[in-house]
This record gives sequence, structure tokens and C-alpha cells, in this order.
Amino acid sequence: MAESFGPGELDRIIHLLAKLPGLGPRSARRAALHLLKRRDALMRPLADSLSQAADKVVACATCGNLDTIDPCGICRDTRRDETRICVVKEVGDLWALERATVFRGRYHVTGGLLSALDGVGPEELNIDTLAARAEAPEVTEVILAMDATVDGQTTAHYIVDRLAGCGVEISRLARGVPVGGELDYLDDGTLAQALKARRGV
Amino acid sequence: MAESFGPGELDRIIHLLAKLPGLGPRSARRAALHLLKRRDALMRPLADSLSQAADKVVACATCGNLDTIDPCGICRDTRRDETRICVVKEVGDLWALERATVFRGRYHVTGGLLSALDGVGPEELNIDTLAARAEAPEVTEVILAMDATVDGQTTAHYIVDRLAGCGVEISRLARGVPVGGELDYLDDGTLAQALKARRGV
Repeated sequence: MAESFGPGELDRIIHLLAKLPGLGPRSARRAALHLLKRRDALMRPLADSLSQAADKVVACATCGNLDTIDPCGICRDTRRDETRICVVKEVGDLWALERATVFRGRYHVTGGLLSALDGVGPEELNIDTLAARAEAPEVTEVILAMDATVDGQTTAHYIVDRLAGCGVEISRLARGVPVGGELDYLDDGTLAQALKARRGV
Repeated sequence: MAESFGPGELDRIIHLLAKLPGLGPRSARRAALHLLKRRDALMRPLADSLSQAADKVVACATCGNLDTIDPCGICRDTRRDETRICVVKEVGDLWALERATVFRGRYHVTGGLLSALDGVGPEELNIDTLAARAEAPEVTEVILAMDATVDGQTTAHYIVDRLAGCGVEISRLARGVPVGGELDYLDDGTLAQALKARRGV
């Protein structure tokens, strides 16, 4: 009885909710009670949309984005710039760039980063498909928007090597002081990169 | 486009997940991606169990606990002590006491606390049903396990007044130093109560 805190159905919801990132057992219990108090406004709509999305959302065979259509909305959108491909590690990063509304080209989602520690090799990532897309005559630039971490940069280097000879320009995001960043709180590496890449005013 | 970060189905899941306590928009997006990566292990089971619980879980007409049967499992359990009723404000508190496995009596969930600020009066809480239960000949003790907050104590006082004349003993949880608590970090109120209620060793 020590483990149980409700009927089987509730235990099960709490157990499943606790597996979500950002929720532990305690917050999963709070969330379960919150849902039960809002059955029509929240619980049933969430159940329906989870079930529908599980069936309908697919990875775009071209870029790896998640959508209910394949090719995805971004790959289909003829108003977007097809000469530029921005490479990101996962769909969350694509969403972040879309929210910033600063990039109107196409994307390519690698599905992760190379990692010696975690045993992730190039064959586990969507890099072959990127190389094939970069060969297309309309593509002129590949922008590597990988994390500024060891694994992110390893992956970026690998992609640069891989795309050598494609004839596309390859760029990466700038390093420097983040907007709102206070110098006092920045790490030495960021300060060094920001100084090295300083620009005339 | 600035608001949108995915197809409608995904936006909807993120919007709904962000309404859960403990999840904001950012963690809701992470949770949605996490679910989409684990459709069979997590996303579909969660959808099913949410949908089932929304239909099946009901509040016990006797005590207010949530269960798939009414009266609930605790009210039906004849091995439990029917002479004691522990009053809590919500089902989460009942679960906390059950996890501690220190109480083997019955419960009564008021469904909230009296609050002048929030405009919660006695008629909004399950206190009439408690008074009726306390009249039963087998009940000898009502234990008030309300929060040690202003609203919790207001509610406890109201219940004490309400049950006057029922002939049951009324008790409340002890106040004092929590297990693992360091004196240096305790507030003055707790220290004062702990000193006042000191016990011989």
C-alpha cells in the first residue's frame, strides 16, 4: 500500500506523467488532480489531441520536421527561400528559429548530435539526406545551427567535411554576447569569442 | 507565424500541456517532443489512461476521495478503522497520508479551505456531509489534518464549531519541528509552537 495512492487508473496516469521531462512524482500527482478537476476543459481534449497526434504526426522525409503532412508545411511552402538550408539537431531547435521569425529558408533536422560518449555515429543521424539535398542546383548555402557544445561542434565539423565538394557555401551561427547578457556573468570562452569576432562601429 | 511552431495538432498539445501545474510553454514543448519520440511507450498509453480516467474516476459520495467505485476503496475497506475520520482539504493530502501509511481510519475531503479572500464559504465545502458522518454512533474521533495556514486554521475552527454537540473527540495534527528540520532555518512561529508543546523525555 505504501506505493499506491489512488485507484489503478490514477496511479497509471501519475506514473506516465512522471516520465515527462520537467515533471517528477510530486508534480505528476498535482497534474493528475488538476486534470481530474478539469475533465471537459483539459483532460479529455488532451487525451484526444495526444491520441490524434500519435497517429497523424509524421517526420518529413525531406527535412525531418514533424508535421501531419509529408513533405512538411515548411518544405511545401513555395514562398520560402529554397536556396538556404539551416541544419538543426532536433525539431525543438527548428521551432525556436521559427519563433524568432528570422529565417525564411528550409531546414534539415539531423535527429541528434554525434557523440563518442553516447556512441552516436554519423549513420544514426540524417546526414546522408542532407548531403543529397545540398547537391541540388538551387541550394547555395547550408547554415549549421548546432549547439555551441563539444558534440554540437563535432557534428558541425563532420558535416563541413561531408559537404566538401558540394559547391555550397557553409556557415555557422555567430558566437558572442547574448542579447541581455551581462559581461560579468559570461564564461571566458564566450568573452574570448566575442572579442575575437568584434566588429567596427 | 510568430506564434506557431508546428502543425495544429502539435500546437494544441503544447497549449494544453502548458496548462498543467509545473509546466510552462517551454517545458510543454519539450514534453510534446518527448511524447512524440515515445508514441507507443508513452503517448498512446497516456492518451488512453487520461480518457479512461476522465470517464471512470468519480468522487466518493461519502468521503470525497477519487476512485473508480463509489463508495471508494477506502470507505469500502472493512479492515480500516471506522471510528476515526481524518479531514483533509483535497485528495492530494489524502494521498500524502496514505503514502505515509500512518493512518488506517477513514477520510473526509472538504474540497478546499474557507477563504474570505477567495470568497469560499462553508456551503462550497463538503462540511454538511462531515457533520452527518460524525453523528454516526461508531465514529469517536475526527482528526483535522488541515494546512497550518490562516485558511487551514480558519477551516479547522469552523469545523470544530460545526461538530460541537456531536459527541466526538476532535483533534488536530501536532505542530513542531519537521523531521530533518534544522532549527536555524525554522520560522519563529514553528519554534514557538514546538517549545510550547515540548514533551518530557
